[in-house]
Amino acid sequence: MTDAASSYSTLRWDNGRLLLLDQTALPDEERMIECRSYRDVADAIRTMKIRGAPAIGVAGAYGLALGAREIAARDREEFTRQLRAIASALLQTRPTAVNLRWALERALTVLDRFPSATVDALRDRLLDEAHAIAHEDVATNRAIGEHGASLMAPGERVLTYCNTGSLATVDYGTALGIIRTAHERGKRPLVYVCETRPYLQGARLTSWELLRYGIPGSLITDNAAGYFMSRGQVDRIIVGADRIAANGDVANKIGTYSLAVLARAHEIPFIVAAPLSTVDFRTPDGTAIPIEERRPEEVTHLAGVRVAPERMPALNPAFDVTPNHLVTAIVTDAGIAYPPFSHSLADLAKVPLGGAGDRRVAR
Amino acid sequence: MTDAASSYSTLRWDNGRLLLLDQTALPDEERMIECRSYRDVADAIRTMKIRGAPAIGVAGAYGLALGAREIAARDREEFTRQLRAIASALLQTRPTAVNLRWALERALTVLDRFPSATVDALRDRLLDEAHAIAHEDVATNRAIGEHGASLMAPGERVLTYCNTGSLATVDYGTALGIIRTAHERGKRPLVYVCETRPYLQGARLTSWELLRYGIPGSLITDNAAGYFMSRGQVDRIIVGADRIAANGDVANKIGTYSLAVLARAHEIPFIVAAPLSTVDFRTPDGTAIPIEERRPEEVTHLAGVRVAPERMPALNPAFDVTPNHLVTAIVTDAGIAYPPFSHSLADLAKVPLGGAGDRRVAR
Repeated sequence: MTDAASSYSTLRWDNGRLLLLDQTALPDEERMIECRSYRDVADAIRTMKIRGAPAIGVAGAYGLALGAREIAARDREEFTRQLRAIASALLQTRPTAVNLRWALERALTVLDRFPSATVDALRDRLLDEAHAIAHEDVATNRAIGEHGASLMAPGERVLTYCNTGSLATVDYGTALGIIRTAHERGKRPLVYVCETRPYLQGARLTSWELLRYGIPGSLITDNAAGYFMSRGQVDRIIVGADRIAANGDVANKIGTYSLAVLARAHEIPFIVAAPLSTVDFRTPDGTAIPIEERRPEEVTHLAGVRVAPERMPALNPAFDVTPNHLVTAIVTDAGIAYPPFSHSLADLAKVPLGGAGDRRVAR
Repeated sequence: MTDAASSYSTLRWDNGRLLLLDQTALPDEERMIECRSYRDVADAIRTMKIRGAPAIGVAGAYGLALGAREIAARDREEFTRQLRAIASALLQTRPTAVNLRWALERALTVLDRFPSATVDALRDRLLDEAHAIAHEDVATNRAIGEHGASLMAPGERVLTYCNTGSLATVDYGTALGIIRTAHERGKRPLVYVCETRPYLQGARLTSWELLRYGIPGSLITDNAAGYFMSRGQVDRIIVGADRIAANGDVANKIGTYSLAVLARAHEIPFIVAAPLSTVDFRTPDGTAIPIEERRPEEVTHLAGVRVAPERMPALNPAFDVTPNHLVTAIVTDAGIAYPPFSHSLADLAKVPLGGAGDRRVAR
């Protein structure tokens, strides 16, 4: 297989190394960083140089491919042992999003699928698998975009959160992919971009993407979302997801839950967009999803500048859980799931992944 | 009357000039700025070097006293005409908070109260009135603190918003004054401080005050408030107000409305604290309250650093309106108002202002 991801800018494989667009430098600088080892990849994920659940999954798969090349063992059993340790180290980087686990587990299936392959052959198969995951991610996002855009009327004012575009995926995006598809279909969406504290993925990344695509949008502070909803200026909310429990509870960027409560209070459709690989059928509901706590400095500092007094404690949960009863629909690559999600998500999971057909689950 | 406000740090009159603690420099630097003209005061209010509805009111009264000294006219009629123009200019600085209008109108009553006073005497009376407003503000806040703290149980975890402490008033504070009183009474409140984008009054100012008073608190991003509520970690929300309509609708810092919706969803008491001078009986309900739109740069930049891409539009409403049905109680200096507020607020307004007695209005 050729370097399937080579045309993408968020991340691409290039001659034995993984190149990542450093998202901490955006929007001011488009700087690629180079990962030559699995530790480089783990660091890039941990420090959020690359972020977004699908992109983290793909980066993790490439990290495993890099790790496989670092293992000196020529004995398959020892190789396997070390490879699993590397997968485990990569998995520790961010605990909430499930796509990383999904991608690593999928990559590790080469061990079973090629039981008699040499260590060298396994290294190649692991890289092929990373390429395949990257390649499929784009098709997956395109399918999400098609399904989601079908829900939208012309001229809708859509509020979105965090960054769920090209930068959060290999290319195109999930929630932002829906908005892009609607835009490409001439539906003229208008976007409210929540800045998304503390990391400002909305202000820095989604704004950057919208300007590139020529989609009209306005940046707002997260706390202004309710104001615009109360004035009848928001027709739909579309967000991504880092993990969706089997019952449809959604873990996503901190603040998503507040938007969902506000959406319900204003009877605004609250749409979650994610690849089916984000649905974790092993997690029955949201209470079982681990919520990553990040460094307080992300709250007390902004863009490298300390804004709070020294010694002021801060709490920095990176995600929250939106209960399924606040979710109007979950748009996946396999179709749109409606409540009750425990049934509709399971139904979608039985159909082949990545398909763009209109396989909706009836309400 | 002596310089009643001279012992306060937020603002004080000193030998013909108004000294203000520059709140844009906090928490890093405690820098006083000097206002020698009403234009200096207007600029300080407009640029938020001084902010907080009660503090703006007092600053406005001192600004009028400064303006009175700038008027060259010795003819009382011409003096009055120019004085009213200065009051009008000061009133334009911030449209939402009503305390500024209240303080200016109160100061202008000296014209009627001293119909035969000379221009020189009127200048003295205007300064006396500013001193009186400043002096009463502290007593008012102490009364709010006593009334509000009576609602609180020991060990309550209180979420607060923006800055409503000493820095928002002449001294002590409104919503934060309640928390301070509870702390001084040994009730050991624990505080969640919302950072309050875009201006970060919570991160910069409320954090700074809590550290000075030794009240334990944690800074959170505004979008994390719902998360902590959903986990049962918030017992009460206490916020200030910039204007309260006759029916109890509350205009306050952008994001207050979202907190109120979340409070209702989690059955958490939502308390508004403000001097009775914040109640605008001429405004029947919240729809009539003008919402100030501030510069988009406050959203696209943070602490002087641009965070969003150039050319990204931003919307920056500075306030929102919380409808009365989401408000549990309004704590004033004259007592606590409960729904229906159109009755309870009017009842409170009939009692003398500034009193600290326990004149509650029955539920």
